[in-house]
Amino acid sequence: MEKFFYPESVVVVGVSESEDNLGQAIISNLVNFDYNGKIYAVGPKGGRVKGIKIYLSVPDVPISPDLAVILTPARFIPEIMTQCGKKGIKHAVIESAGFREMGKEGYRVEKDLIAASKRFGIRFIGPNCVGLINTLNGLYVPFIELPSEFKKGNVSVMSQSGGIGLSVAERLNNPGLGLSKFVSMGNKLNMDEADLLAYLIKDPDTAMIYCYLEDFKRGRDFADIALRSGKPVILHKSNTNPLSHTIAKSHTAALAVDDKIVDAACTNSGVVRVQSIEEAIFAIKGISMPLLQGKNLAILSRSGGHSVVAADMCAIYGFNLPQLHPGILEEAKSYFRAGVMKIGNPMDLGDIFDFHIYSQIAEKIMRQPDIHGIVYIHVSQIVIENEDSIQLMKKLTKLSFKYNKPIAIVAEVPLSFQRMLMEEMTHAFFMDPVEAFRALALQYRYAAFRQKKSSTVKEAAFPLKDNVKLWMEEIQEKNRQPLLHEALELLNRIEIPMAPWRMVTTFSEAREAAKEMGYPVVIKAVSSALLHKSDQGGIAINIRNAEAMEKQWEEIHSRFKDIIGIVLQKMIFASREIIVGAKRDPAFGPVVLVGMGGIMVEVTQDVSMRLAPVSEDDANEMIDQLQGAKVLGPFRGMKAADRHAIAQCLVTVSQLMHHFPDIQEIDVNPLILSDDGNYGMAVDGRVICSNITSQ
Amino acid sequence: MEKFFYPESVVVVGVSESEDNLGQAIISNLVNFDYNGKIYAVGPKGGRVKGIKIYLSVPDVPISPDLAVILTPARFIPEIMTQCGKKGIKHAVIESAGFREMGKEGYRVEKDLIAASKRFGIRFIGPNCVGLINTLNGLYVPFIELPSEFKKGNVSVMSQSGGIGLSVAERLNNPGLGLSKFVSMGNKLNMDEADLLAYLIKDPDTAMIYCYLEDFKRGRDFADIALRSGKPVILHKSNTNPLSHTIAKSHTAALAVDDKIVDAACTNSGVVRVQSIEEAIFAIKGISMPLLQGKNLAILSRSGGHSVVAADMCAIYGFNLPQLHPGILEEAKSYFRAGVMKIGNPMDLGDIFDFHIYSQIAEKIMRQPDIHGIVYIHVSQIVIENEDSIQLMKKLTKLSFKYNKPIAIVAEVPLSFQRMLMEEMTHAFFMDPVEAFRALALQYRYAAFRQKKSSTVKEAAFPLKDNVKLWMEEIQEKNRQPLLHEALELLNRIEIPMAPWRMVTTFSEAREAAKEMGYPVVIKAVSSALLHKSDQGGIAINIRNAEAMEKQWEEIHSRFKDIIGIVLQKMIFASREIIVGAKRDPAFGPVVLVGMGGIMVEVTQDVSMRLAPVSEDDANEMIDQLQGAKVLGPFRGMKAADRHAIAQCLVTVSQLMHHFPDIQEIDVNPLILSDDGNYGMAVDGRVICSNITSQ
Repeated sequence: MEKFFYPESVVVVGVSESEDNLGQAIISNLVNFDYNGKIYAVGPKGGRVKGIKIYLSVPDVPISPDLAVILTPARFIPEIMTQCGKKGIKHAVIESAGFREMGKEGYRVEKDLIAASKRFGIRFIGPNCVGLINTLNGLYVPFIELPSEFKKGNVSVMSQSGGIGLSVAERLNNPGLGLSKFVSMGNKLNMDEADLLAYLIKDPDTAMIYCYLEDFKRGRDFADIALRSGKPVILHKSNTNPLSHTIAKSHTAALAVDDKIVDAACTNSGVVRVQSIEEAIFAIKGISMPLLQGKNLAILSRSGGHSVVAADMCAIYGFNLPQLHPGILEEAKSYFRAGVMKIGNPMDLGDIFDFHIYSQIAEKIMRQPDIHGIVYIHVSQIVIENEDSIQLMKKLTKLSFKYNKPIAIVAEVPLSFQRMLMEEMTHAFFMDPVEAFRALALQYRYAAFRQKKSSTVKEAAFPLKDNVKLWMEEIQEKNRQPLLHEALELLNRIEIPMAPWRMVTTFSEAREAAKEMGYPVVIKAVSSALLHKSDQGGIAINIRNAEAMEKQWEEIHSRFKDIIGIVLQKMIFASREIIVGAKRDPAFGPVVLVGMGGIMVEVTQDVSMRLAPVSEDDANEMIDQLQGAKVLGPFRGMKAADRHAIAQCLVTVSQLMHHFPDIQEIDVNPLILSDDGNYGMAVDGRVICSNITSQ
Repeated sequence: MEKFFYPESVVVVGVSESEDNLGQAIISNLVNFDYNGKIYAVGPKGGRVKGIKIYLSVPDVPISPDLAVILTPARFIPEIMTQCGKKGIKHAVIESAGFREMGKEGYRVEKDLIAASKRFGIRFIGPNCVGLINTLNGLYVPFIELPSEFKKGNVSVMSQSGGIGLSVAERLNNPGLGLSKFVSMGNKLNMDEADLLAYLIKDPDTAMIYCYLEDFKRGRDFADIALRSGKPVILHKSNTNPLSHTIAKSHTAALAVDDKIVDAACTNSGVVRVQSIEEAIFAIKGISMPLLQGKNLAILSRSGGHSVVAADMCAIYGFNLPQLHPGILEEAKSYFRAGVMKIGNPMDLGDIFDFHIYSQIAEKIMRQPDIHGIVYIHVSQIVIENEDSIQLMKKLTKLSFKYNKPIAIVAEVPLSFQRMLMEEMTHAFFMDPVEAFRALALQYRYAAFRQKKSSTVKEAAFPLKDNVKLWMEEIQEKNRQPLLHEALELLNRIEIPMAPWRMVTTFSEAREAAKEMGYPVVIKAVSSALLHKSDQGGIAINIRNAEAMEKQWEEIHSRFKDIIGIVLQKMIFASREIIVGAKRDPAFGPVVLVGMGGIMVEVTQDVSMRLAPVSEDDANEMIDQLQGAKVLGPFRGMKAADRHAIAQCLVTVSQLMHHFPDIQEIDVNPLILSDDGNYGMAVDGRVICSNITSQ
C-alpha cells in the first residue's frame, strides 16, 4: 500500500492537449509541486503536456509504473484496468465519476471494473474522487490545478468527498497545523475507510487523522482499528438525516446509517466525532496541544468581561475553575495597583501592563497539580503592544509544552494583528473564547478515552451458549419468527431475571397457574398476527382474581381468532423501568442499547448505545450516560435501583448478539426496577431472527 | 440625552502631561478621530496635551461644556460632579473604577456621587466603564488610545463590559457591517440598560443594537422597550452560572439573575439572545440580510460533499428543503454535461463552470414563492476564478435584496482569497456553512417574532380580583406565610379547578367528609413546621376506607406535634401531571412557568417561562414549547389532555401575580390531567407572600 503514497513512478491516463482536459491539471500539479518520481501520461490523441509525452495507450508506456491515475469516461475504465493489470500495475486511483451513483448503467461498468481489478489483484482508490496528495514527496494528483502547495504538517485527511477534503486541507494552513497525506475516497469500491485508516495509522509522518465519511463500508473494522491505534482520529460523518440522504446517494453513492450507531462506535473506539469542518479544525487545534489530564482550568484574561464570558463557557463545556494556591494569589496581588477583588480564578490581569508578569503567573499556575490547563484571553487594541504580545504568546506555548498541560491562547485583537499572528505564530491559537473551549472539550473527549482505555477489553466467554443453541435450532426448524412465549423462553435461557410466567392454553390451566403465582396477574395473547402489533389490545393487566381473569380471557379470545395460547404473568409494581435492546447493523455488527422506559422515553429519546459485546464496566458507563440516570439513584423516597441487574442484562444480551449472528434484534422491554432496589425483572421481550424465510 | 452622543463640547477631567496618564488617551482619540466639537481638558497639574490646554479645575473652563468625561481617582469624583453641576453641565461619563465593585469604601463614595448628581440633575454613564463612541462625529472617549477609527455602519453597541464592547466593535469591521454608537455602561449607577436602549432605538443612525449585560437593573423595562421597538435587539447576557458570579460581581458589580427569566423576557419581547461574541456576529450578519418569511431553503453548492453537510445543517437548525419547481430543474439539467441525478435541493453545481448560469438558477429559485431563502456555498481553489467569483457573489447579494429573501453566501476558499473578499465585498458573507445556518436560524427567531407580534398584546382584566383581596388582607393580618389550606383556598378563589378537599380537625369530621366525597382519599397535615418541608411524611395517599384512614390519622398526629388541622382530599388517578408556577423577580417582575410534572421533571428540567401576565395564546405557546408536549396529545391509549385547563391556569396565575404585588411566589403542583382528556385538576398548592415580618 506504500505505493499509493510513495510511488516511484506515476502514469496519468486520460490526458490530452485540449484546453478543457482535466488530466492536464494532474500533470501540472505533479510538475508544479516537484513530485520526486517519474511522470508518464496516456491519452488516445497523443501529444505533449508540460513537456511530458502523451503515450497513446497504457501498453505503450515504457516501464510498469507504481501507480496509475485514471480520469477517462467511466465506460473505458474496465479495459484500462485490464491493460494496467497486464502491464503489472498494482495500484490505481480512479477519479472518474459515472458509476453506481449514476444508476443502472453505472452499476454494469462497476461490475466490470471490479472483475478486472480482481483478475490482476489491483488495489484502487475511488472511483468518483479527486485523488490523493502526499505533501512530503510532491505527489499531487487532484484533477484541479491547485494554486499552491498545501502547508506541510502531520495531519492526514481522508475524505469521502473531495470538496470537503480539500476545504479541510486548506484550513490546515494555520499556525501549528499542516497537511501530511490527503486521500479522497469517493465510492470506496475497493479501498475503503478501514483500509486507509489502517495505512495512515501506521504512517510515521501522520500524527492525527481527520476523516470525512458519508457512509460506512466496514464500520466495525474502522472502529477496531481506531481503538487499537495510538493516534487521534477525528471523524466527520455527515448524511445523518433524511434531508441529506438523497444528495449523499447521488454524490458518493452513500447509504444512510443509523447515526446513533456511529456515535456508539465513536464512544467505543475513542474516535472524536465532529459535526462540521469548523469543529474539525477546533478538534485538530485542541489535540495539537498537550492533552488535558482532567477538567480543571484556570482562566487568565486582560478583560473582566471576557473573564465572565469565559467562566460561563467553562460551565457550558463542563470544566471547573478550582481555587488557585494562596501563594499565587498573593503574588498576583502584589502587582496590582489598587483594587484587589479581581484576583481569583478567573484572574483579570487588565491592570497589569508588564507581560513578563503574565508568564510568571502562568508558570506558577502550571505548577499547581490540580490545574490541568489554562485559557488565556489576550485583549489588545494597541499597536505598540503587538511585538510584546507575540513574544508573550510564544512564551506561553513553550510553558504549555514544558509542563505538558494545554494553554489555549485566545487573541481578541483587531483583524490586522490577527493576520500578523497567523504569520508569526508557530502553534495553534484561537480567535474567540468559544473556539478555545470547544477545542479543549473536544480534546478532552480523546484524552479521557486514552486514560481509561485499558479497562475496555472485553471477554467474550458466554457460558450460556449451549442453552441458546437448542432454542435457535428449534426456531430455525419452525422457520418463523419467535412468538412471545418463545422470546420469553430465550430470556429465561440466558438467565435474565423475569417476572414469573407460564404459557397456558385453557382457562382452567390459567386459573391454577394464577393461584400458584398469586394475584394480581397479567395475561398476554400469543399469536403470529400480534407479533408486530403491540398496541392491539392483546394484553390485560392488573387482574385481581379468577372472575376478572375469566372476563378478560374471554374478551381477548373473542377479539383475536388465531391465538395459540396465553402468557400468564405475575404483575409487578414499580415506578422505574428500563429498556435493554440490541440489533445488528450491516456495517457495525451487533450494537446494544439501554434506555429509560416509561411514559417519557418517547419524548426524551434517552438511550445510550455501544458496539457489542460490552463488559460490565462499559454497561455501567452506558447507564451513567443516560440523562435519566438520576432516577436510578435514591430518588423520591425510592432506594437506589438494582443497577447490577441492568448491567448484567446488557452484558448478557450483548454476548448473545456476539455469539449468535442469526439473532437480528432483541428487546427486553421493560426491565422493571423495584422501588426497594432489590431486583430488576424483565416482563416482556421480543426477538427477531435472520435466515427465516416464511413470515 | 442627545448630548451624550452629540455634544458640541467635551471636557475631559483627569488629564495630565505625565506619561502614564490615561486621560491623555481620551484627548488623543478625540483629536485623532476629528471630533467635530470643542475639546477641553482639566487636571490639577495643568500643562498641555496634544496642543490642548489643561485647566486646573472644572470652574476654570471658560464655557459650560455639553459633556464631562471624568477619569480621576474615585474619591475625588463627588466633588468634581458638584463642580460640574455648578457649572451647568448635565451629562457626564465617569470612567473611573473604585466604587461598589471595590467594597465598603467604594459604596460610600458611590453614595456621595449619587447625591451630587441628584442635586444638580446630572445624568451620567458609568462609573467603571471605558466611555462612549459615536463614529459619525468622531466622539471617541475611551481611555485606550485606539489605533484607528472603527468602520462606520449602522450597528450600535451597548455593553456592560468595555472589553467585550470593544471586541464586538472591532469585529464589526466586516463587509456589510460597521459601528454607529458605542457605549460602555459599567456599573450602571445612573444610566442603565433601559435608558440606553430607549435612546438607541430612537437614534435614526442605528438600525440594530447589540447589548452585552452581566446583570439587569431594569429588566422589565428593557424587555418592554425592545418589544415596542421596530429594531432588532441582540442580547448577550453572561454571568449565567456560579462559576462566573464572583468575577462578574468584582468586574461590574453585577448580581446573578435567574437565567431562565432572561430567556423568558427575550421570548416575550423578540430580543435575540446569543451566548458569545461569535454568535452575536452571526446574528448581526443574519439580520443584515433580508428577513426569512419561513423556514424553507434551497441549497446551491459547487461541491457535493458541502451539499450533504449543508443538508444536515438544515435538519439541525430546523430548516426544510422543499422540491424546486420542475421548470427550474429542467433548466438546470440542460446545463449539465452527463450526470443528472444531482439536480434537486440541494443542487450540486460542481459540473458547471459558467457563473452566469449560477445567478440565473438562483434568480429562478428566488421567484419560487415557497422558497424563503438560499444558502450558496462557493468552493474554489483556482486563483483565475477569483474575479468572477466576486462578481457572482455581488450579483447574488443584489438578487437577495431585489427579491427580499436572504441569500447566505459561504466562501469555502483559500485564506488569500478570503482576505480579498474581506476587502471587496460590500455585504455580509460566511466562512463556513455552519456560520450561515447559525446566522439564518438566529435571524429567523427575530423574523418569526416580528410576524406574530400583533397577537401578543395582553388584556389585564382580572374579574376575580375582589375574591383575592379579602384573602390577602386576612393573611396580612395574621402576618405569617399562608398554610396549606389557605393556599388551597386561594386557588379556589381564583377558580382553578381542584380535586374536592376539606379542612378538618377531628377524626369524626374527617370520616364524614370522606364518606361524602368518596374513597380513596388523601390526608395532608397542616402545620407551620411542615410548610417548607414537603418530604417530611405529613401526607398519606390512596386511603381506601375509614379504618385505613384512622391508622394514618393517628400515625401523622403522633409524628407531628403542631398540627392545626388536616386537609382531606379526594384521590385523583391519572398518568399526566403538569406544574404551573409563578414568582416575582427584582428586575423583571412577575414571571409564570409551566413544566412537565411527575418522575422525569427533575431530570429533564422541562419548563417554559414567560413574563406575566400572559394571554391564552401565550399560554398555549408555552405549552407547545415543552419538550414533553407530545405526552399531552393523544398518547399511549390516553386521549389528548385538557390543554385548555392548563392554559387557563397559566393565564389566571399570571393575572394574580400582575394584580397582587404582595404575592411573591405561587405553585400549582401538580395539576393532574385525566387520561380521558375531560379535566385538569390541581391537587396541591403553595403560596409565599412578601411583606410578612414574622416567620
